[in-house]
Amino acid sequence: MTLGRADVEAARERIAPFVRRTPVLTLGADAFGLPGRLTLKLELTQHTGSFKPRGALSKMLASEVPEAGVIAASGGNFGLAVAYAAHTLGHHAEIFVPSTSPRVKAERIASLGAEVRIVEGYYDEALEASAVGAEETGALVMHAYDQPEVVAGQGTIGAELSEQASDADSVLVAIGGGGLIGGIAAWYEGRARVIGVEPEASRSMSAALGAGHPVDVPVGGYAADSLGTKRAGMIAFDVVSRHVERVVLVPDDAIRDAQRRLWDSVRLFAEPGGAASLAALLSGAYVPEPEEHVVALVCGANGDLAAID
Amino acid sequence: MTLGRADVEAARERIAPFVRRTPVLTLGADAFGLPGRLTLKLELTQHTGSFKPRGALSKMLASEVPEAGVIAASGGNFGLAVAYAAHTLGHHAEIFVPSTSPRVKAERIASLGAEVRIVEGYYDEALEASAVGAEETGALVMHAYDQPEVVAGQGTIGAELSEQASDADSVLVAIGGGGLIGGIAAWYEGRARVIGVEPEASRSMSAALGAGHPVDVPVGGYAADSLGTKRAGMIAFDVVSRHVERVVLVPDDAIRDAQRRLWDSVRLFAEPGGAASLAALLSGAYVPEPEEHVVALVCGANGDLAAID
Repeated sequence: MTLGRADVEAARERIAPFVRRTPVLTLGADAFGLPGRLTLKLELTQHTGSFKPRGALSKMLASEVPEAGVIAASGGNFGLAVAYAAHTLGHHAEIFVPSTSPRVKAERIASLGAEVRIVEGYYDEALEASAVGAEETGALVMHAYDQPEVVAGQGTIGAELSEQASDADSVLVAIGGGGLIGGIAAWYEGRARVIGVEPEASRSMSAALGAGHPVDVPVGGYAADSLGTKRAGMIAFDVVSRHVERVVLVPDDAIRDAQRRLWDSVRLFAEPGGAASLAALLSGAYVPEPEEHVVALVCGANGDLAAID
Repeated sequence: MTLGRADVEAARERIAPFVRRTPVLTLGADAFGLPGRLTLKLELTQHTGSFKPRGALSKMLASEVPEAGVIAASGGNFGLAVAYAAHTLGHHAEIFVPSTSPRVKAERIASLGAEVRIVEGYYDEALEASAVGAEETGALVMHAYDQPEVVAGQGTIGAELSEQASDADSVLVAIGGGGLIGGIAAWYEGRARVIGVEPEASRSMSAALGAGHPVDVPVGGYAADSLGTKRAGMIAFDVVSRHVERVVLVPDDAIRDAQRRLWDSVRLFAEPGGAASLAALLSGAYVPEPEEHVVALVCGANGDLAAID
């Protein structure tokens, strides 16, 4: 069964008391030298600095959370989000963080009250350890992008956008595992053009679309921290296949340039993954029609400020 | 004659095509551990990273700008704003920058197409040199905070807020020379409680209110770059005397703390002057009622990122 608008509406009702309705900034026709109207959705002002609490809250609120609480593997935005959601709802959270993640992120996760387990290795090793942990404790497993309630939670951004930019023609969304675009495209169900953006160096969804199903891809590049996902989620892939017009690729330099220009022009800092959607516009990877009203979703700000300093 | 709502409305009509309607972010009751509802007005996303283009555009559009263009003294946000407004409207701009201003600001002003004249000394020396320059060229003199059209232009923020946060009980506004609060209080004319915020180290408006008229004060402290004004403007003083409930003082450490917490909680960077209004809330210099809906105006972001790094 494909995820759809009703799922996102249900998620929105669940999470409404706990998330911020993030603002939009509508820029003039001349912004960044682009022809049409551009609206930025400032999801970077969400709790924990990324969109991820929407999905984490949606999943927890739809589930019977056992005494053992929730468990997740992540050294980044999802780990922060699960820790935040668990803290907000009063659940115990255990987060398995790869030893290769920046130490500061593990500290932030711990500061939100979660129990942090450092696992030697990369994301896959942390994921495996979290699965073992869940079997032992019986905690609720939280997946970063491939559970329907998580994807529906991220889609609530689309519901807000329908109110805030009701005449938007297209929405540009960065893709890691696809949870964000899957939710947003499920909300729009074709009512607006949803365009995916992947870094050239990490293209799980482009590869999935090419193969007809999710496949393993190499990950890397400047935005790997938030967008470097080995395999697109099945739920998102299903929605994207039906409702996403296309997925464009952006080089790392375009992402760096978008970070810099976002700061210069609007004084907002985005992490690489958060600037990818704008990068697609600025680099010409996506070329809107002259009258097109484009929304670029700026979805995260947990990066290194040195990028703009 | 006191500046009032009609002046702000006229300014709004003039500048509407050229400024950004900056967004607001409404935070939950628990934001920053505060009891009531808090709305942040994100004026830091305005062109050039501060509110100042509103006043500069308002003045230029209300004036016959001579062939010689406009002239101003400023090594900071007002200089950027005049350069931006002149560039946008096709006028020549000559900006006198004190040699003590950060070199990077002079470069930014020049990059907006203005002619930059570095003047040995501080703001007063630059102001004097700009007056001499204006006599020579006949250019239109732009004052940072003591011309009615400039003050009315800044007040357009109040007009936007009336729509974006129509049930706001109070609005916290930082004071340098008073142009910003003068305009906003002129707009509200007592319909909402407008509260001024000054750094302990630079208190031109508190001193003016104490003396019954603007007087010279020492300036300094962490926020001096944008709020360090020797003497409050007469136009603003007049409005503030009538319509501002009170002016509170914040220590430098409270401003630093507000910058840090704004970043931690909302991922926004504000310069010291831009964080002063929030500092009044977080430090307890202003204590709202439990049910009070407070707006804090975050009015600029042209500062040193090291404050949050």
